Amino acid sequence: MDPVAIIGASGALGFGLALRLAQTGVPVAIGSRDAARAADTAERAGAIVPDGAFSGHDNAAAVGAAGAAGTVILSVQFRNQAETLANLKHALVPGQLLIDATVPLAAAVAGKATRMLGVWQGSAAQQALEMVPEGVRVVSALHTVSAASLSDLEQPLGQDVLVCGDSRADKRDAAALIERVEGLRCVDCGKLEMSRTTEAMTALLIAVNARYKVHAGIRLTSLPEQLWA
Amino acid sequence: MDPVAIIGASGALGFGLALRLAQTGVPVAIGSRDAARAADTAERAGAIVPDGAFSGHDNAAAVGAAGAAGTVILSVQFRNQAETLANLKHALVPGQLLIDATVPLAAAVAGKATRMLGVWQGSAAQQALEMVPEGVRVVSALHTVSAASLSDLEQPLGQDVLVCGDSRADKRDAAALIERVEGLRCVDCGKLEMSRTTEAMTALLIAVNARYKVHAGIRLTSLPEQLWA
Repeated sequence: MDPVAIIGASGALGFGLALRLAQTGVPVAIGSRDAARAADTAERAGAIVPDGAFSGHDNAAAVGAAGAAGTVILSVQFRNQAETLANLKHALVPGQLLIDATVPLAAAVAGKATRMLGVWQGSAAQQALEMVPEGVRVVSALHTVSAASLSDLEQPLGQDVLVCGDSRADKRDAAALIERVEGLRCVDCGKLEMSRTTEAMTALLIAVNARYKVHAGIRLTSLPEQLWA
Repeated sequence: MDPVAIIGASGALGFGLALRLAQTGVPVAIGSRDAARAADTAERAGAIVPDGAFSGHDNAAAVGAAGAAGTVILSVQFRNQAETLANLKHALVPGQLLIDATVPLAAAVAGKATRMLGVWQGSAAQQALEMVPEGVRVVSALHTVSAASLSDLEQPLGQDVLVCGDSRADKRDAAALIERVEGLRCVDCGKLEMSRTTEAMTALLIAVNARYKVHAGIRLTSLPEQLWA
């Protein structure tokens, strides 16, 4: 199995995802702007999940490690999203699946973490779609899963991942990967433009977390058993 | 107990709420632009919940029936929200609690039900706050509860109501009323401005419902037992 590249895996969400995916047997190519930092993160991850297959790379090399039909998870701060994607323009290749988890929190420009920035394209995910080479398949997901819960491997997750994208097949591919992690159920929430709401749910959960001192997640009720048939 | 006024109770969400609240022993003053239509709705509701105390009024009279410290639930189409509130300017009195459930779906101006309109104030609830007399306490809630599930009294609800408002006490009052309905749990989601996200969740659920042919609701995970202590 080709590795899944996680761009920004030194950050909290990316690191938690790396651990959880590695636990399920997925090799993880950890990407960072700085290859040495990526190597450190890979070592740190390996100490926590000894059976995991982690490798550290600069971002472009991590995307390369994912292979021509591979999956790249983009898990960076909003303030770095555009620059990161610009730098990956020659690394990403048509056919790759990009799962964007970027959230345009107002905190990116010194605002509150409970407020969102307006993104001209509608959402961070739509901005990503505009920036990647044609043929790279973009879906958005994972915004509402708390980094703290992911990183705490003793913590049952038991929550939904809201997946948006313009292609049902691409969303299904993303779901098949993400649902390897026990306790994460993926729900098809519609087109990529719906990402403006799933991204905003992160700010809402941050408000809820602050109020109740928890790491809340989302669960949709009354859904059928088979969500990706 | 003073009646709770439901403005727009001839609509699907308002009607379902009227039934569910009446089941718990809350008298319901059904408001409509047309008093005769309100009377019809009250009769129809009484046939479904024979123990319920329903009365029909024009909107202003329904607000009056709720009493000086009473609760008014605003459950109208977005396209009618501003006009309705303008007409209630002399009916609403300081101290009353207004629970706004309005969702600015793009369908209000012939767009898709999975898209939202931008409201200058940020959300329909903030527009409501701007329009009511000073001293009327505004919270937003109930957007994500499906009208179909509310109206089907055999249907267990088992979902959360996302409550936003600038006063914790006002939110608590709204929660105390709404949580009389079995299966509805109210969660404090922050200030009234957060309503732009809770309102938008409705469009997202409409997309999910279309995809899966269900009436989905929301549940937040990992919350403590006591949410309004």
